[in-house]
Amino acid sequence: MGQPERVQGKETFPKARMEALTDGIFGFAMTLLTVGLIIPDSSPYENVAAMLISLIPDILHYALAFFVLASFWFSHHMQATHLRFIDRRYLAMNTTALLFVTLVPISTLLVGDFPEDILAAITFEANLLITGLLFAAQLWYAAGSGRLISPGSHVVQGKRRAMVVPIVSLLAIAIAATGITWSTATYLIVPVVLRILPTTAAAD
Amino acid sequence: MGQPERVQGKETFPKARMEALTDGIFGFAMTLLTVGLIIPDSSPYENVAAMLISLIPDILHYALAFFVLASFWFSHHMQATHLRFIDRRYLAMNTTALLFVTLVPISTLLVGDFPEDILAAITFEANLLITGLLFAAQLWYAAGSGRLISPGSHVVQGKRRAMVVPIVSLLAIAIAATGITWSTATYLIVPVVLRILPTTAAAD
Amino acid sequence: MGQPERVQGKETFPKARMEALTDGIFGFAMTLLTVGLIIPDSSPYENVAAMLISLIPDILHYALAFFVLASFWFSHHMQATHLRFIDRRYLAMNTTALLFVTLVPISTLLVGDFPEDILAAITFEANLLITGLLFAAQLWYAAGSGRLISPGSHVVQGKRRAMVVPIVSLLAIAIAATGITWSTATYLIVPVVLRILPTTAAAD
Amino acid sequence: MGQPERVQGKETFPKARMEALTDGIFGFAMTLLTVGLIIPDSSPYENVAAMLISLIPDILHYALAFFVLASFWFSHHMQATHLRFIDRRYLAMNTTALLFVTLVPISTLLVGDFPEDILAAITFEANLLITGLLFAAQLWYAAGSGRLISPGSHVVQGKRRAMVVPIVSLLAIAIAATGITWSTATYLIVPVVLRILPTTAAAD
Repeated sequence: MGQPERVQGKETFPKARMEALTDGIFGFAMTLLTVGLIIPDSSPYENVAAMLISLIPDILHYALAFFVLASFWFSHHMQATHLRFIDRRYLAMNTTALLFVTLVPISTLLVGDFPEDILAAITFEANLLITGLLFAAQLWYAAGSGRLISPGSHVVQGKRRAMVVPIVSLLAIAIAATGITWSTATYLIVPVVLRILPTTAAAD
Repeated sequence: MGQPERVQGKETFPKARMEALTDGIFGFAMTLLTVGLIIPDSSPYENVAAMLISLIPDILHYALAFFVLASFWFSHHMQATHLRFIDRRYLAMNTTALLFVTLVPISTLLVGDFPEDILAAITFEANLLITGLLFAAQLWYAAGSGRLISPGSHVVQGKRRAMVVPIVSLLAIAIAATGITWSTATYLIVPVVLRILPTTAAAD
Repeated sequence: MGQPERVQGKETFPKARMEALTDGIFGFAMTLLTVGLIIPDSSPYENVAAMLISLIPDILHYALAFFVLASFWFSHHMQATHLRFIDRRYLAMNTTALLFVTLVPISTLLVGDFPEDILAAITFEANLLITGLLFAAQLWYAAGSGRLISPGSHVVQGKRRAMVVPIVSLLAIAIAATGITWSTATYLIVPVVLRILPTTAAAD
Repeated sequence: MGQPERVQGKETFPKARMEALTDGIFGFAMTLLTVGLIIPDSSPYENVAAMLISLIPDILHYALAFFVLASFWFSHHMQATHLRFIDRRYLAMNTTALLFVTLVPISTLLVGDFPEDILAAITFEANLLITGLLFAAQLWYAAGSGRLISPGSHVVQGKRRAMVVPIVSLLAIAIAATGITWSTATYLIVPVVLRILPTTAAAD
């Protein structure tokens, strides 16, 4: 909890409480995802089996959103590990990214309730696209001329990994735009791609 | 996690867990804001597009409340950075301010559901006014005769910045009282003003 | 994050993560209290003013519960400051107390929705009684023959302060049992009594 | 917040923020359990007493789920105490386990609303079975050839304790499958068994 300082003529802040707020918002958003699963409960299903079957699209999209949020959180975590300090612009980017993180439970609920609707799928995919781009922009900004992060190969690899969800989201939106339903299944390639790409730590 | 001590004959406390509770309540309130977006979901809209369009006022007010809460959190964060310790009165002020923070999701929901209603707008604006005044009072108290914060130009600037949301809220209430709807748009000047004002760290 | 150790033949644990979970649950429970305020929103009120008026009993009980929870949190905080370590039994007591903390939003909602109902009031008051007794028992246990807390006058005063909410709750239940409505107003004497009692830190 | 490192040719990460996210998700899931208790509130009960009586199965299952989640959290806490660092696979296992933790409030709501339904009971028990197995697998993985945890008798005992909830869950599912209702009562033996088994710290 150090004092804010001026580094290279810019005011900077310690990063500990930004991390605490970020962890809190991610934790809540990841848990709040389940609220969408409560809603059908009041619906007039004949029995528990019918209710559970009706929840399957919700659960699939819930698990998908949970893992995508977890991957965003992990990237943020890795990024923060390398940060020497943060500045006001970095904090503004982080806040905007968190705003879109908190919208993920809502767009997941939408696509879970209307799994065959193209617009619902695009809304969900656009939410992940924007969130992913904001986190990528944050890394780009932080690494720019060694501003907040000391340069190194981990930055190169981090940037590449940060583009995986945005690119897959664009692909999913393109698929949805052609009228194909269940375009959200495109995200299943995310873990495969992330496994193949070298990790930020590999060259440290 | 030091022991409570008596400084200048007053009992004081370490600040770490107050920060943890504050971060938790801010994170949760900022995420809970989205719950208001769930409610129209059960409404009988014809299609997903109509539902999304009906959500626009909610999303705008949600984003507005999210950024105002983030700015309160950031001010609190900066304030806490300068605190040497806290006392019982500071803690009471913080608790009362957090009570009004937790009400923000509700008043945001109200104004999002009734975007043309003057009373709904005033309720939302009064909530932000009171919350802002309580956080400003906390800084005033902490800085009074170097009670909890060592004096310095950052205090002068912090006090000035802390008055931005309360003054804009008063302005918005005045606009609403004349019968103009969408008075909440007044808050759009907050980031502009905060950008112009010198920051707490600038003179450290 | 030290290793568990055996002190005086008993296994003990570090306290940091118990504090983190406790802060998290208190923060969520204190924010979740507002969910009760959302429910009337779907009710068919004529206008926003009528809706806000109908929320008054909810808001009063919400504020009451918020401050009682904050006082429990603060006592727990002070208690934890003095803890050298925790043991399995202390953790079990803490978990049970947290269970009743998470029930407070529900019993607050109940008494806010039925402010004139005797049984609703008693349910709310019994919830605070049990929670308060569990936190008091925790202190009693921790301080027993210097088990987890080194003895001192702060323990004597802490025990006295820890009995305030339970005693006021008993008083409120007794008032409710005689058929008097709004017995929850009894809690207004809590801050007065806590102000008069010497604080745990005073004699350190 | 150390740097990621390569230990024995594997990339590893510091554990602090994984613990923060885990504590957040557990705290939120344990509090969100109460949301199930809100739902009957809108139902047309004659009076508060009838409403409270209708909540009894919900409250019993809520308390059961709360203590099972608390025991998972405590095992995770003890496990993390012994961790030297974490790797990508450990993190993936932790994320998957947390996914099932966040589903517990939903399956608890299901079994609380349909306490006599066999399928609802099995859904709840299967949720706890999978969560328990994932946490056990995590310990198995971490302890494998001293990968992330230095070997010792605490590992042997930790593994044994980690199997209690899975085995009891299997037993409960078997009981439910024979058509016996209220099979969730089987979990009442968990605290008894955990009390009898030697603790991880005992032999350190």
